[in-house]
Amino acid sequence: MLDNTSERAGYHSPMVKPAPALVAGSVGTVETRYLDLPEPVRLDCGRDLHPIRVAYETYGTLSPRRDNVILVCHALSGDAHAAGFAKAPPEQSTRDGFGADDRDGTAGKGLGWWDGMIGPGKAFDTDRFFVVSTNLLGGCRGTTGPSSIDPATGRPYGPDFPVITVADMVRTERAFLDELGIERLAAVAGGSLGGMQALEWAILFPDQVDAVIAIASTHALHPQGMAWNSIARDSIMRDPAWQGGHYYGTGRVPDAGMGVARMVGHVTYLSAPALSDKFGRRLQSADDVRYTITEAEFEVESYLRHQADSFVKRFDANTYLYTSRALTYFDLARQHGGSLEQAFGGVSARTLLIAFSSDWLYPPSASTEIEQALGALGKPVECHVIDAPYGHDCFLLEEARQTPIIRRFLTG
Amino acid sequence: MLDNTSERAGYHSPMVKPAPALVAGSVGTVETRYLDLPEPVRLDCGRDLHPIRVAYETYGTLSPRRDNVILVCHALSGDAHAAGFAKAPPEQSTRDGFGADDRDGTAGKGLGWWDGMIGPGKAFDTDRFFVVSTNLLGGCRGTTGPSSIDPATGRPYGPDFPVITVADMVRTERAFLDELGIERLAAVAGGSLGGMQALEWAILFPDQVDAVIAIASTHALHPQGMAWNSIARDSIMRDPAWQGGHYYGTGRVPDAGMGVARMVGHVTYLSAPALSDKFGRRLQSADDVRYTITEAEFEVESYLRHQADSFVKRFDANTYLYTSRALTYFDLARQHGGSLEQAFGGVSARTLLIAFSSDWLYPPSASTEIEQALGALGKPVECHVIDAPYGHDCFLLEEARQTPIIRRFLTG
Repeated sequence: MLDNTSERAGYHSPMVKPAPALVAGSVGTVETRYLDLPEPVRLDCGRDLHPIRVAYETYGTLSPRRDNVILVCHALSGDAHAAGFAKAPPEQSTRDGFGADDRDGTAGKGLGWWDGMIGPGKAFDTDRFFVVSTNLLGGCRGTTGPSSIDPATGRPYGPDFPVITVADMVRTERAFLDELGIERLAAVAGGSLGGMQALEWAILFPDQVDAVIAIASTHALHPQGMAWNSIARDSIMRDPAWQGGHYYGTGRVPDAGMGVARMVGHVTYLSAPALSDKFGRRLQSADDVRYTITEAEFEVESYLRHQADSFVKRFDANTYLYTSRALTYFDLARQHGGSLEQAFGGVSARTLLIAFSSDWLYPPSASTEIEQALGALGKPVECHVIDAPYGHDCFLLEEARQTPIIRRFLTG
Repeated sequence: MLDNTSERAGYHSPMVKPAPALVAGSVGTVETRYLDLPEPVRLDCGRDLHPIRVAYETYGTLSPRRDNVILVCHALSGDAHAAGFAKAPPEQSTRDGFGADDRDGTAGKGLGWWDGMIGPGKAFDTDRFFVVSTNLLGGCRGTTGPSSIDPATGRPYGPDFPVITVADMVRTERAFLDELGIERLAAVAGGSLGGMQALEWAILFPDQVDAVIAIASTHALHPQGMAWNSIARDSIMRDPAWQGGHYYGTGRVPDAGMGVARMVGHVTYLSAPALSDKFGRRLQSADDVRYTITEAEFEVESYLRHQADSFVKRFDANTYLYTSRALTYFDLARQHGGSLEQAFGGVSARTLLIAFSSDWLYPPSASTEIEQALGALGKPVECHVIDAPYGHDCFLLEEARQTPIIRRFLTG
């Protein structure tokens, strides 16, 4: 019943895979690497975090002038493995039972979550660019997060991990690139929360970013989106196995609550018509309803449970909480005196915005608001709204139509 | 921060209360009564259920010819108290801690959930009609449901309660009205799941229903709606306190899971613009974010938690499961050989459909599909789509604009 592609992204679980944009190559087999930052990172909450390890992958070749770097930022449940085949799964979290054997068969080992966009001849063309992808701060796929060891106690941070922001993620990425000897970015790109990071880069480090590509993203999540994220977090925290966040090493993990969180998220990533087209009201059993409360009766019910079950095997609940909190906090106007124009006042990067007509979680209106604010300031910006039916997941699916837009923008 | 009206309906928790339609009276103080059916009701699942007690209220006066009866059917979390002030709270469930003292201050004692629509001079005019409202089969507000005592064991049914359908609810209402000596209905009316019951009445008992009023309802929930209901049920069943449904008398109830279910439901009852208008991205604290994962930071987060907390005090989790399952099963085409035309072939009632432009859970398209099927059969039907911003909750809020439509229809 389920497409294999549903899991390939290891991320938003796209449902339908359109044909690729053009004949393009693969970056081949890649390996996630790890780098320890030498200095603490000062966070928005006032704390200095140290040590910080960053998981990352790179694709393509760094030019001698180091001027061809594109940083790719992932969304809520992604990781550093953005392209190619993984040589080995990313470093294991300390989360109980979160081992390679349990992990979703495709999430850690298969194709990267944006493989259709990164590679020779693809949107982010590795014949030309050196593409860098990191697991974000607070993550559970190799970068320091709540499941990492707190040096003060020798045990995982859990809820003692500092509450982080999108700006903190960006500062960590900046410190990480310093260690790679990379000062400037030809572009920073991402979808959803990844697009938030891209926008934040242009504001925090205006002299070091030539171009921003923010896809299916926003300057501030709308209240209904905040509500869904709040419900997802509450679902995790209401699970008694969460234990106030101190579940590591207890043999109990809040899989029940995180499964519900994932199901809520999953429905918000899809459009209602996409769910109708894929499942309709088809029953699981061939003939008629079976009069059961506990069993899945309809295909859509079974599909959601599958999404929940596979997600909890590869993701840490505290990372979900911290990342969801960061994307809910993100509000460029609030962070800059109340207006988007003030937020973007110092931006020098060219900006490309892409939104999708059926995305109701990060609707096109958010992108056009950004376009208008940048335009009012005379900043170079272009915004494309792609008419596509899959909802927020389009940014993982609509490679064919994003590719020429991005390639042209990066040439400009 | 919260409108008192948010709780008054005891049901969908409307957020904003428009001005009443016209100066109309109240039905005054009313008392919920109880009636035990003398015979078992044969259910769709094949089981005979007995005994069945039905909680009900009546408003207005039965005409000597008994030809002025309107049956009002409630939605997922409603009860028999549809209008007037409650003289006493409905009979207590056996659910632990589910006593009058815990119950939401307004839900059981205050105004009925459709008080703005039922009364002298109102849409359902008690100067003319005898309005009957029952708690549906499977309920937890006086009518027999999973929290009732199973005569076979002397303990609450819990998960041994038979899985019920909308048709079973209607058969129970039919048997109940028999006991009241009421053979014909001048009309049967309801919103959401209540509208499903109204449509089912016209199909099951075509010779006994003169008119159907189905508001913000559908002939079959769309797949995204099925997904939300599935998530809500899974949230309850994943709560360890649910204990496979055998939580009565254990001192533990699945409030955590049902709270999440309610929050999911609540967001689906509202439109995204309504949430934006009401809360925006306003912080709970006056100045800035407080860097907290566990505390509500935004007003919308606090509001949802309040909705969850007040709901679990007045509602039984198993009733939620059974009722949600029934409304997910409801599919008039599937139940009648695959087509709506077949389903409606025997209908003789006039039908009034009302939908709301911003209702994305029971969208106007569902009502127009019903209108087209009835129209193709030459059945008398009218469909009104009201342009209103509050989402599915409009059927509880938009009294002013529903009233003239319903009054005119009932005169016709």
